Amino acid sequence: MKTEIIAVGTELLLGQITNTNARYLSEKLAERGIDVYWHTVVGDNPQRVAETFSIALNRADLIIFSGGLGPTMDDLTKETVADVLGLTLEKDEAWEKELEEIFARLERKMTDNNYKQALIPSGARLLINNHGTAPGIWLEHGGKIVVLLPGPPRELMPMFTDQVLQLLPKKNGVILSRVLKITGIGESAMEERIADLLANQTNPTIAPLAKHAEVHLRLTAKAVTRGEALNLLDTTELSVLKRLGEVVFARDEETMADKLASLLVKRNMTIAVAESCTGGLLAHLLTNVSGSSTYFLQGQVVYSNRSKTELLGVPSELIEKHGAVSEEVARSMAENLRIRSHSDLAVAITGVAGPTGGTAEKPVGLVFMAIATAEGIFCSKFNFIGNRETIKERAAMAALNMLRLYLLKVNSFKLC
Amino acid sequence: MKTEIIAVGTELLLGQITNTNARYLSEKLAERGIDVYWHTVVGDNPQRVAETFSIALNRADLIIFSGGLGPTMDDLTKETVADVLGLTLEKDEAWEKELEEIFARLERKMTDNNYKQALIPSGARLLINNHGTAPGIWLEHGGKIVVLLPGPPRELMPMFTDQVLQLLPKKNGVILSRVLKITGIGESAMEERIADLLANQTNPTIAPLAKHAEVHLRLTAKAVTRGEALNLLDTTELSVLKRLGEVVFARDEETMADKLASLLVKRNMTIAVAESCTGGLLAHLLTNVSGSSTYFLQGQVVYSNRSKTELLGVPSELIEKHGAVSEEVARSMAENLRIRSHSDLAVAITGVAGPTGGTAEKPVGLVFMAIATAEGIFCSKFNFIGNRETIKERAAMAALNMLRLYLLKVNSFKLC
Repeated sequence: MKTEIIAVGTELLLGQITNTNARYLSEKLAERGIDVYWHTVVGDNPQRVAETFSIALNRADLIIFSGGLGPTMDDLTKETVADVLGLTLEKDEAWEKELEEIFARLERKMTDNNYKQALIPSGARLLINNHGTAPGIWLEHGGKIVVLLPGPPRELMPMFTDQVLQLLPKKNGVILSRVLKITGIGESAMEERIADLLANQTNPTIAPLAKHAEVHLRLTAKAVTRGEALNLLDTTELSVLKRLGEVVFARDEETMADKLASLLVKRNMTIAVAESCTGGLLAHLLTNVSGSSTYFLQGQVVYSNRSKTELLGVPSELIEKHGAVSEEVARSMAENLRIRSHSDLAVAITGVAGPTGGTAEKPVGLVFMAIATAEGIFCSKFNFIGNRETIKERAAMAALNMLRLYLLKVNSFKLC
Repeated sequence: MKTEIIAVGTELLLGQITNTNARYLSEKLAERGIDVYWHTVVGDNPQRVAETFSIALNRADLIIFSGGLGPTMDDLTKETVADVLGLTLEKDEAWEKELEEIFARLERKMTDNNYKQALIPSGARLLINNHGTAPGIWLEHGGKIVVLLPGPPRELMPMFTDQVLQLLPKKNGVILSRVLKITGIGESAMEERIADLLANQTNPTIAPLAKHAEVHLRLTAKAVTRGEALNLLDTTELSVLKRLGEVVFARDEETMADKLASLLVKRNMTIAVAESCTGGLLAHLLTNVSGSSTYFLQGQVVYSNRSKTELLGVPSELIEKHGAVSEEVARSMAENLRIRSHSDLAVAITGVAGPTGGTAEKPVGLVFMAIATAEGIFCSKFNFIGNRETIKERAAMAALNMLRLYLLKVNSFKLC
C-alpha cells in the first residue's frame, strides 16, 4: 500500500514549526510494514490543497492528512477533501452533543465555527479526539483510504495509535530497522569495504548515513514475521561485521559512551580525563551515562598553560619547548593525571579547536591524545576538519574510541 | 517566485529523521520575502525522484533539493536532475583538486565514489562546501532555478546562507522573524505577563515555544521593506522587555554562553568552574565560544568525593556532615576554586542528576550552586525535573544565568 502523508499549514511553509507529525506517522507505518513514498506540505490555500490531494489520489493508495481541522477560517482540509471527492458534509449528532458538553464544562459559548467541527463528509467515519475539539475522519472512496488527523501532535498521536492503526488493513509483514554505528573510518572508505553487500543486498537494504563523528549503516528488513525480519538483520549484520570489524562500535540507541561504560564496568576499571581543546565535552559525554560515578573519577579542563602546570604538573619547560599542542604535552598530561587521580586509565587531549589559534605548523583541527595505562602510555595524532563544535565533537569521539579499542585489546596505537 | 523544497532520503520516509532542512530553508526564504508553497519528501529512488522533480518543474519557479549528494551509490539527486533536464555531468577541475587536497590532509585514499563528487551538470555553477566533500549546485534552466544542497544540516545551512541567498533575486516585501530567548521562568508564567500582547498583537505575531531549559518567543513581522519590518520587531520587542525584564537573556542565534562571554570580556574578568552533577557540560558550553581561552581558565569535574577533597580542598568532614549535595559543599568548592585557579569568578555545582542516587531528603533534580566573587560568595538552590540529560542541561543553564545576573548586577542571589 503506497502511502502519502500531507501536512496542511502555512506555518510549516514559513519555517515556524517542523513537520514532526510526518516523522511520527512514518515511523509507525514502517513498523506496520506500510510503505510511505511521499511527504508533502502545502499551505492553507484551498486550490493548492485540492491540487495536492489530486496528485496524491493519482499515485497513492493511502493518504493521510494532518492539520487544517481546527475551528478557524483557514482550517479547510475537510471541506476541500469533500469537495474533490464530490461528497457533502453532514452533521455528526453524537459529536455535536460532545462538543456542546465540552463547551458547557469550560463555561464557554459555542460559536458557528465550533459547530463546523461536528460536520463530516457523507459516508465517512468519525475518529474521536480525546484531547481537542476537532474530530478525525476515516474515509474509503474509490479504492483509496483517506484519513484526516488534527495538526497538534498531542491530538494526532493518540488518535493515530488508538484508532487509525486498528482500522488499517493488517499487512502480512513487518519492516524492521537496525542501525550499526561506525567511527574511525570515512564514509567512502567504509563503503568500499562493503561494496559487494551494498551492490547485491536487497533484503535487508543497507543505507549509509554520515553523521558528524560517526557513520551509520541502516539495515532495513522486510519479512512476514518479526522473527524472520530479525534473522535477516542478524545475518546481514554478521556479514557487515566480518568486513568492518572493530570500526563498528554500537547498535541502535547505544552511544559510544554507553559502550565504553559497559567495558569499564566489566573490567572493573576507573577513568580520569584531562581536556584542553574539547573543553569538558569528553567528561560530559562520559557522565551522560547513568551510573558513571562508579568508574568516572574526575575530569580536568586545563585550558590555560598555567592550569596544565598547576593542576597536572606538566613541566612549563616542556610546554615552552614543544608547545601546548604536542605529543609530549599530551603524554605528560596523561601520565601525571593517572598518578594524581589514582585511576586505572587516564586520557589527555590537547589540540587546536579553532577557528582562531591555528598556525601553518599546527593548523586548526590538529589534536594529540594520550592514554596512560598500567602497560604504558599510548599516543595518537589526529587532523580533524570542521568548525569549532565539530572539531570538539570529533576529538571527544576519537578519544572515546581510543579507549574502547584499548579495552578491546585492539592495539592500533603506539607506546610513546 | 513560487518555491518548492524537495528532500531526498528514504530515512525521512521511514521516520528515522525529521526534515529539519525544510524548516530552516523555509525560514530563511520567508525572511527574503520568497513564498514557499510546497515541501516534498521522496525516497532514494531514481524514478520517483524524477517524477517529483517533473511535478515541481510544472508548478514552481525555484526548486531546492536537499540530500542525495553524498559519495555513495544511493546518492542520486545530481544524476537524476541532470537526466530530467537532459544535461550531461562534467568534471569541475577546481573541486576535484580541492577534494584531492582534503583527502591528502586526512591521509586517506580517494575512491572512485569520491571522484564522482567533482561532477556537476553542464552549465551549472558549483557551490563550495566548507564542511564536507559534496559540493552544492546552482542551475538556471528554462526560466527555472534549481538548487541542489547536501543533506547534513551543518553543510546545508552555511552553503545556503553564504552562497545561495546571495544568488537569489531580491524581492519587494519581507517577512522577518526574531526570537527572544527566556530562562528562569515557566512558559505559562511568562504568558501571563505578556497576555495583553499575545491577545492583541497581529503584526508582528508572537508565538511562544518551550525548550528544555529555555522558552522562546518568536516575533514575526510582515512589511514592505526590511527597515519597516525591523521597526515593527523593535517596537514589539521593547513591549515584551518592559513586561519580562531580565529573564530575556538573548536574541536569535546568540546563546547564553555567548552572552556571558561578552559580559566577561567587557568586564575583563576570568572564570573557573567546578562541576559535580553537570559532569563537564558547563565547561563544554563555555568553551564552545570562540576566544573563550581569554577568560576561561580551567574546569574541574569533581565527580568522586575524593576528587572534591584532593582537587579542591573541600574538607572531608564537611562532606560527611552535610553530604556532597549541599549548600556548604557548593560554597566550599567555589571558595577554594577561586583561590586555587586565580580567577575572578569561580562557579561550583553539586546535585543529583539521577535517575539513581536520589533520596527523600535529597531527590533527583536537587542542585546547589555557588559563585565565589571579590564581593563574597553567592549561593542558590534549585529543583529541576527531567531525565539525566535534561537535568544536566537545566543545571548548566541555571549556572550560566546566575553568572549573567551577577555580572548585570541584578542581585537575586543571597550571600552565603
